[in-house]
Amino acid sequence: MKKNTTNSIGIFDSGLGGLTVAKSVNKLLPNENIIYFGDTARVPYGSKSPETVIKFSLEIVNFLISHNVKMIVIACNTSSSYAINKIIEQINIPVTGVIEPGVLEALSKTKNNKIGVIGTNATINSNIYSNKIRFQNKKIKVYSIACPLFVPLVEEGWLNKKITDSIIQEYLRTLKSASIDTIILGCTHYPLLEKKITKYFEKKVNIIDSGKVTAKYVKNILAKNGLLNRSKKKGELSFFVSDMPYRFSEQGSNFFGSEISAVRVDL
Amino acid sequence: MKKNTTNSIGIFDSGLGGLTVAKSVNKLLPNENIIYFGDTARVPYGSKSPETVIKFSLEIVNFLISHNVKMIVIACNTSSSYAINKIIEQINIPVTGVIEPGVLEALSKTKNNKIGVIGTNATINSNIYSNKIRFQNKKIKVYSIACPLFVPLVEEGWLNKKITDSIIQEYLRTLKSASIDTIILGCTHYPLLEKKITKYFEKKVNIIDSGKVTAKYVKNILAKNGLLNRSKKKGELSFFVSDMPYRFSEQGSNFFGSEISAVRVDL
Repeated sequence: MKKNTTNSIGIFDSGLGGLTVAKSVNKLLPNENIIYFGDTARVPYGSKSPETVIKFSLEIVNFLISHNVKMIVIACNTSSSYAINKIIEQINIPVTGVIEPGVLEALSKTKNNKIGVIGTNATINSNIYSNKIRFQNKKIKVYSIACPLFVPLVEEGWLNKKITDSIIQEYLRTLKSASIDTIILGCTHYPLLEKKITKYFEKKVNIIDSGKVTAKYVKNILAKNGLLNRSKKKGELSFFVSDMPYRFSEQGSNFFGSEISAVRVDL
Repeated sequence: MKKNTTNSIGIFDSGLGGLTVAKSVNKLLPNENIIYFGDTARVPYGSKSPETVIKFSLEIVNFLISHNVKMIVIACNTSSSYAINKIIEQINIPVTGVIEPGVLEALSKTKNNKIGVIGTNATINSNIYSNKIRFQNKKIKVYSIACPLFVPLVEEGWLNKKITDSIIQEYLRTLKSASIDTIILGCTHYPLLEKKITKYFEKKVNIIDSGKVTAKYVKNILAKNGLLNRSKKKGELSFFVSDMPYRFSEQGSNFFGSEISAVRVDL
């Protein structure tokens, strides 16, 4: 396995969601090898303490490093928030989370300086997005809303139901009344609701999908460090999980956009 | 700690939900000491494999045994389904899960032999309820529906919202058309939706709350084994979690019905 996965981009998440990030990276950089790890035995991270999330994240990073990855992408908002500094401290290859790229993109898009952020309870309660946005520009008003029903809604596949519109309305009403012009999807599951959210805002709002902007970020970092894969071959994709590979493969294709097969490993 | 908790009933769940069971046990047996363990670092169990759930459950049982509990109540449907046999094998005190008591109560209540079962994906996919019901009585028709949005709905506290009625209708419509006369709430979170579910069925259906029937079961087992606490003092209640004790205390009081404070322990 090591031989095939050398020179890969290592991407991890607590479970499935990060596959939307992996999808964007794969789309933008089709010649790169990707190793994805989903911590399905311990998902979700959002309800766990910072110490626990850091511990789990470092275990995964060590697993990816053992496969000689050239870069780490933390495709999980909770881990990006709690663990990125510890990870950077401990390894000597480039690392990115999904928060910084989303924040920078939102800052470059907003015109009325009103940005909405949606995410899980953990992400919103951590204030990570609003702190990072206001650290860059104090004039910006940030409206943050936790939307804990969105993840099970997406996993249930209720992407075209009326109830989904009602739940979106329930959660996003205050953002609409606040006249935000930009919204950050601060959870890797949310891109699957992008159409409905766009519709709710009548196409008047810039929707920031962290996966897409993180992929651009990854490309830049690899280019700057002379680490881009020069091969013309299609990159190899490997998926590892800590539990239930079958279910991951089944549910994951919705997130990744094409068939995947996963291998279970113990950490 | 050991001194106080000897002669206690040990109750565990992957997280908060089992508190509805603990509440019922405490109500029926107010003089019993209870030690509750919520595995908040690894919640939920429903998306994990049987081997993983068994491993985690045995770790918790060992923790409870180290506090000299006289009985184990598995207040988690997933663990009741996957781990109860392994637990019974390994210890020599009485053990009950939440499934058996719910099944027996439903069998005693139904008149038209049509029973509905609702639960998480894991519980429903395991077919544990329908197998156990039909093992007792082949004439019974079981209608099982997974309702994965109910847990986040309850944790969000949306107990009185219109959306909750819509989601209940979406999930339970087929049970209504099937004219069930009895429904098992096969998840320890669901008793918080009991009022809305009763209303949806226009009070025409027996609602089986596993917590309540498990409490009766616990009382019977303790009585039969001469293990009931003869003290007239109010029992002591201790709550342990594997992560985030503060949040557990905060959210848990809704489930337990009165204030609780939790202590974090490593397993």
